Amino acid sequence: MRIAVLNGPNLNLLGSREPEIYGRATLAEIEQLVRAEAAKLDADIEWMQSNHEGALVEAVQNLKGRADGALVNAAALSHSSLPLRDAFLSVRVPFVELHLSNIFAREPERRHSVLADLAVGLVTGFGAQSYVLALHGLVGRLRA
Amino acid sequence: MRIAVLNGPNLNLLGSREPEIYGRATLAEIEQLVRAEAAKLDADIEWMQSNHEGALVEAVQNLKGRADGALVNAAALSHSSLPLRDAFLSVRVPFVELHLSNIFAREPERRHSVLADLAVGLVTGFGAQSYVLALHGLVGRLRA
Amino acid sequence: MRIAVLNGPNLNLLGSREPEIYGRATLAEIEQLVRAEAAKLDADIEWMQSNHEGALVEAVQNLKGRADGALVNAAALSHSSLPLRDAFLSVRVPFVELHLSNIFAREPERRHSVLADLAVGLVTGFGAQSYVLALHGLVGRLRA
Amino acid sequence: MRIAVLNGPNLNLLGSREPEIYGRATLAEIEQLVRAEAAKLDADIEWMQSNHEGALVEAVQNLKGRADGALVNAAALSHSSLPLRDAFLSVRVPFVELHLSNIFAREPERRHSVLADLAVGLVTGFGAQSYVLALHGLVGRLRA
Amino acid sequence: MRIAVLNGPNLNLLGSREPEIYGRATLAEIEQLVRAEAAKLDADIEWMQSNHEGALVEAVQNLKGRADGALVNAAALSHSSLPLRDAFLSVRVPFVELHLSNIFAREPERRHSVLADLAVGLVTGFGAQSYVLALHGLVGRLRA
Amino acid sequence: MRIAVLNGPNLNLLGSREPEIYGRATLAEIEQLVRAEAAKLDADIEWMQSNHEGALVEAVQNLKGRADGALVNAAALSHSSLPLRDAFLSVRVPFVELHLSNIFAREPERRHSVLADLAVGLVTGFGAQSYVLALHGLVGRLRA
Amino acid sequence: MRIAVLNGPNLNLLGSREPEIYGRATLAEIEQLVRAEAAKLDADIEWMQSNHEGALVEAVQNLKGRADGALVNAAALSHSSLPLRDAFLSVRVPFVELHLSNIFAREPERRHSVLADLAVGLVTGFGAQSYVLALHGLVGRLRA
Amino acid sequence: MRIAVLNGPNLNLLGSREPEIYGRATLAEIEQLVRAEAAKLDADIEWMQSNHEGALVEAVQNLKGRADGALVNAAALSHSSLPLRDAFLSVRVPFVELHLSNIFAREPERRHSVLADLAVGLVTGFGAQSYVLALHGLVGRLRA
Amino acid sequence: MRIAVLNGPNLNLLGSREPEIYGRATLAEIEQLVRAEAAKLDADIEWMQSNHEGALVEAVQNLKGRADGALVNAAALSHSSLPLRDAFLSVRVPFVELHLSNIFAREPERRHSVLADLAVGLVTGFGAQSYVLALHGLVGRLRA
Amino acid sequence: MRIAVLNGPNLNLLGSREPEIYGRATLAEIEQLVRAEAAKLDADIEWMQSNHEGALVEAVQNLKGRADGALVNAAALSHSSLPLRDAFLSVRVPFVELHLSNIFAREPERRHSVLADLAVGLVTGFGAQSYVLALHGLVGRLRA
Amino acid sequence: MRIAVLNGPNLNLLGSREPEIYGRATLAEIEQLVRAEAAKLDADIEWMQSNHEGALVEAVQNLKGRADGALVNAAALSHSSLPLRDAFLSVRVPFVELHLSNIFAREPERRHSVLADLAVGLVTGFGAQSYVLALHGLVGRLRA
Amino acid sequence: MRIAVLNGPNLNLLGSREPEIYGRATLAEIEQLVRAEAAKLDADIEWMQSNHEGALVEAVQNLKGRADGALVNAAALSHSSLPLRDAFLSVRVPFVELHLSNIFAREPERRHSVLADLAVGLVTGFGAQSYVLALHGLVGRLRA
Repeated sequence: MRIAVLNGPNLNLLGSREPEIYGRATLAEIEQLVRAEAAKLDADIEWMQSNHEGALVEAVQNLKGRADGALVNAAALSHSSLPLRDAFLSVRVPFVELHLSNIFAREPERRHSVLADLAVGLVTGFGAQSYVLALHGLVGRLRA
Repeated sequence: MRIAVLNGPNLNLLGSREPEIYGRATLAEIEQLVRAEAAKLDADIEWMQSNHEGALVEAVQNLKGRADGALVNAAALSHSSLPLRDAFLSVRVPFVELHLSNIFAREPERRHSVLADLAVGLVTGFGAQSYVLALHGLVGRLRA
Repeated sequence: MRIAVLNGPNLNLLGSREPEIYGRATLAEIEQLVRAEAAKLDADIEWMQSNHEGALVEAVQNLKGRADGALVNAAALSHSSLPLRDAFLSVRVPFVELHLSNIFAREPERRHSVLADLAVGLVTGFGAQSYVLALHGLVGRLRA
Repeated sequence: MRIAVLNGPNLNLLGSREPEIYGRATLAEIEQLVRAEAAKLDADIEWMQSNHEGALVEAVQNLKGRADGALVNAAALSHSSLPLRDAFLSVRVPFVELHLSNIFAREPERRHSVLADLAVGLVTGFGAQSYVLALHGLVGRLRA
Repeated sequence: MRIAVLNGPNLNLLGSREPEIYGRATLAEIEQLVRAEAAKLDADIEWMQSNHEGALVEAVQNLKGRADGALVNAAALSHSSLPLRDAFLSVRVPFVELHLSNIFAREPERRHSVLADLAVGLVTGFGAQSYVLALHGLVGRLRA
Repeated sequence: MRIAVLNGPNLNLLGSREPEIYGRATLAEIEQLVRAEAAKLDADIEWMQSNHEGALVEAVQNLKGRADGALVNAAALSHSSLPLRDAFLSVRVPFVELHLSNIFAREPERRHSVLADLAVGLVTGFGAQSYVLALHGLVGRLRA
Repeated sequence: MRIAVLNGPNLNLLGSREPEIYGRATLAEIEQLVRAEAAKLDADIEWMQSNHEGALVEAVQNLKGRADGALVNAAALSHSSLPLRDAFLSVRVPFVELHLSNIFAREPERRHSVLADLAVGLVTGFGAQSYVLALHGLVGRLRA
Repeated sequence: MRIAVLNGPNLNLLGSREPEIYGRATLAEIEQLVRAEAAKLDADIEWMQSNHEGALVEAVQNLKGRADGALVNAAALSHSSLPLRDAFLSVRVPFVELHLSNIFAREPERRHSVLADLAVGLVTGFGAQSYVLALHGLVGRLRA
Repeated sequence: MRIAVLNGPNLNLLGSREPEIYGRATLAEIEQLVRAEAAKLDADIEWMQSNHEGALVEAVQNLKGRADGALVNAAALSHSSLPLRDAFLSVRVPFVELHLSNIFAREPERRHSVLADLAVGLVTGFGAQSYVLALHGLVGRLRA
Repeated sequence: MRIAVLNGPNLNLLGSREPEIYGRATLAEIEQLVRAEAAKLDADIEWMQSNHEGALVEAVQNLKGRADGALVNAAALSHSSLPLRDAFLSVRVPFVELHLSNIFAREPERRHSVLADLAVGLVTGFGAQSYVLALHGLVGRLRA
Repeated sequence: MRIAVLNGPNLNLLGSREPEIYGRATLAEIEQLVRAEAAKLDADIEWMQSNHEGALVEAVQNLKGRADGALVNAAALSHSSLPLRDAFLSVRVPFVELHLSNIFAREPERRHSVLADLAVGLVTGFGAQSYVLALHGLVGRLRA
Repeated sequence: MRIAVLNGPNLNLLGSREPEIYGRATLAEIEQLVRAEAAKLDADIEWMQSNHEGALVEAVQNLKGRADGALVNAAALSHSSLPLRDAFLSVRVPFVELHLSNIFAREPERRHSVLADLAVGLVTGFGAQSYVLALHGLVGRLRA
């Protein structure tokens, strides 16, 4: 089973970026955590991060035939990017949306997602553990 | 560790109620699933369901000193009940909000929650598995 | 043929409650009127009233297998109760919504209903006669 | 007792017009149904249909002194025609508004009426039977 | 002179519930304060609290003929409960609405009331003293 | 100088139509009043009334080259008719909008006009005298 | 017959102030025009202008018993001044609202008035002639 | 292949009506242009124009069985006429909506259409050429 | 203890101004009532009224160091005056807002206050007694 | 004559991307179709597609002096991209906006365009033929 | 070069008024700062402050012919005063709007200005330095 | 002292792009102007421009440790880019937002900024001089 993990703008700064909101783990540490957990589940991880909407759109386009599902933390693009939405409508790969912070306890413009209704489900608010919970949720659904 | 699970209006009909949305598991089956998973985590479960807002308000009030945390599926009351919100503001027990269906892919009036910003986090869209993921999320947070 | 009649908050005060709007007939007098008309149509009436949303939710849940249809005057709950809406979505018994006064000539917050799109139809504005017209409408539909 | 029945735009197409919404009865068949029921109630029926707002306005103006009441299915004009509203304000003949489909289960722009607060009452959602129920409601009110 | 005092959801937790907003006095202490002040004014107090909307609706219904006026702190139900509004419309007993905190300095959803336009007046923001001021206002009006 | 006077739906009922709002003068009496005043100003009057939007549109179209200006009381069509607005945009004849009642003291939907920004000016609230004042305003402007 | 004329902020600059909108007549010239026309109608004029809302409020208060009616051009205060509205509600002297430019062809914030529903009527868009037409309208109403 | 072309209010004034917006071609010239182009495509044209909404509604009703498709320039009625929308819902003949000017560069009230979602497609902004492009689009679709 | 009482526009007309809303007591009579009650509480009263927003702003500015608290009936300025709000933000003297009528049973534009969230509390709807209740509320708070 | 054709995000997936909406033609096939039609009109085509907003912005900037006009299918960026709008405002090359599907029959967020008011015109809903019709519309305008 | 500086309500309290927002400099100190800076630029300063809207309106009226430009800190009147806007429209003297605090990081009602679109420019958020920057901006523009 | 200057989409076209709005200076000329002014202030300038949101996000990320502050003209991205906002939240370098034109005199969608509340201050409307004023404002703040 192959799982792609897509990370959006500014997540490359995790650890030093507003740590009181996003925690002190770096993206590399989270990647290690996800890879270790995926190994227990016999799943391979393909990991990427970009600050460019176009690059993320193409990463979604490339999922087709190359991944069984995806974990998506689109960060600030979650709230308004229709091109990203169209990309998921095009490839129809099952994915779980996730966020480190509880987006429903944030500012109003962060309290909705243009991707969530296309997702298998959404996990938000558990810090780095959100990735692990989302991974379990996705694998459970793919094996059902 | 003691975990209370609170279930709101019409959840007693699970299994026969709009199964294409809510799945075919009955609430009793979900309860068994949660109790089994909790046992592995050395946690005790206190389970309740009610169709009355007032009864749920009092169940929240009674959490204080009797539970370390709660899982809450307030069903249709999630979207508008200020008394329930006030109850959580009063007792300040950590809780995770959960939903069987992905509420962000439902009708507009179901796409927000008056409880979510008070919660540790929110899990939505994984069917009965939402209870299990929420349980892990809550226990992880309580043990951190 | 068994017909349930459900009456919501404050209808137990009919006769003395704002008679210039709701008329001078008491709820007991209306019940007699409905039972007499139902007898002519070979239909049995099960009558209830409650000021508690939770009790009305459970009355709807209990319709399944025990009634062929229902007449529903949910009073002030007609305009906002999602738990009541969910109950009707769960049991899917045919029902007619009715009101004594013409709700479309009332205050703005009373001019819409969260139940009406689920109903067979709606009768409003004929005073106690609304119950009789709604009964004929429901029986006609059930026998079609 | 003389009752006028006014029918608005596109109702001349009943039977072939979106039958899954409006039913398969033609307007002529409904007219026969209403005339038969009125005969039992000792009432005379004056029937008209027009696709022109101005013609309907004048039909309302002519009610004065020539009809004791009216049944009005203004179709798409129900939702926005202020000239029609003014005509009813001018002649003040009692009337019942009616619709074949349940307008409260239709698209948003059809869920309110600019005539309804002037009416004795409103009947909606019973197909051709809406005309019969409205006739009984109107005659009952006129004889009270 | 008989004065009923009605207290809504979560007020039974006063003293420990968000004391920085609602103060440290318990509901029992406030009751004593009100009874003492009423004694000076030759008025009897009937005191109740409930977390159930239906129970509060019935408490209002029972005011008729049993109380000369009421003090009402409907708490979170103040902002949205149409059944409670209908109950006051039904019995038409004079009442004063009151709040411990200044609701106009709270969150947006708490800044309006569906009861206030029916009340004699409104007192908000004086903590436990709000009850005393409201009592004086009500008695003054009843004796005028 | 030739002045056309255009009158919209239901104005043919003036005198008996809601006289507490529109006064007791009939449209024929107002026409006489306007003709007499116009004679003093050396102006000819062309008078028409219709309940049909299309007929009014064509009356506006025909103004071109046949009238120096117009007085327009479009009645209920003043508030929403874009075809009438387009007709005035097409012929660009100077006109004054007028109303018998003060439309700014009426119901909300009557408090704006889709014609007023194209007009020389607007006169409202003086009963039949509104026609006379509007005539003076128009003639004054045409002779300036 | 005594008529007061009240002029609001910036009208003292007429003649040089945006003449393409307000015309080239000064306020003194308009005053002469109004006094001349009033003399023909056997009416006395009391004229004032102020840039201070408070001074205009007091001018309205002083109308009582000292004027039979008023012409009011409140300029920019027309659109938002509740103190001025309250003053007219207090003294209840009949008045006509007037404007030099056609306010319905101006920017959105100038297209409504907080005074107009209290007025006998409104005249707008005839330049200095608006004062003359309004004077005739007011005198006609006072003599009726 | 038979194609009906329906033209709405004020289009009979084309050529002299706001030529800076609608161009200098008359409706007769546009008709010639369309007939010539249709001849090349082996299609017959039935042409009509009316200023009356009711007449246009009936023209749509008459399309059934008499035309294979329609070109519709409903002019000002495009933006608000529900009767016209209902007529198209009744007969379900394929049609293309077209406009001379680019309606998305016009005033706000002209920037949406109540017909467009029922159409095969929409062409706007090419002056008289809009008719030709729409004709090709319609014929292409009908022959596919 | 020194208490300032500030009264806004048109309150100088009390007694004759809309007495069915504001009562028949004059402002001088209310001042006497307040002074008498204050004497019992060992408090001095400084009383002022103005129709000018600027004068009220300066009265608030002067409170600093000269008054321990204030009672404020800003009348029509309560609903929109940001300069008055800024003045209270500047001096931070504790004050109670009060109104004679129940502003929440008035027209929509009077149902909110731009001062209320800065106040200790608000008393509304008790006529002249509103001043007395507000005085007790303020003194109680200052002595706490 | 040189015509640039700009294609936005996800259009590189045409043929396999939601074919029930966008059709089965690939972008390469559409390009061939457009080039063939352009050859008949003596026009050269410059074709590009990108998933990056910045690349499209620069493509628009480069139009200046290198193309006589453009066909633009900005896909999901049509609905919200202000940088793209600014680019067109900067270079002012005439362009036609086009869409494969009828965007007015799609989801609400796709029913408006931030580019359309700058365009010569808009063609929507004819599948691949939209490109051909838009090409004719643009060439016709450029040669006029 | 003569520069007028106009200061609005409550600015006379600077130094003690909410210093955490507006800083600790008094208005007199700011005046000295501005005069010193203006001397370096060979400009004369005319300085005024008022808490009265009417006085500020007249100060603007008096600018004509007496000042080459103005610096305007209208404080709370910036957000809503149409009389002040009209005064600037009347005299058309170039001015720069300025604020001590960053109004775009303040409460919503302070985040727009009714003067800003008439200004040469706007400077906000630099404390007393805002005056100096605005002075430089204005002089630069006047000398250009 | 090191100052970065970030310029957003389409600013590379300055000079030829809508010069009546943005002026005739090219971006290179503005860069020279800023460098010259910075030299006087002993500050170094790092200058960049991009049409890609992702490139701007990374430019902000790179500010940390490499610049003491920044001047930001994000052009069309100012109004909606949450990724850019997140980048500034991540690095927390002090910056001043600036615009050439007065954005508060532009179209509605350009009248707010999603960056402004994070900025030290905002300068708008002085053409190229906006850069210079903003530079002074920033340096003044950094040296304070």
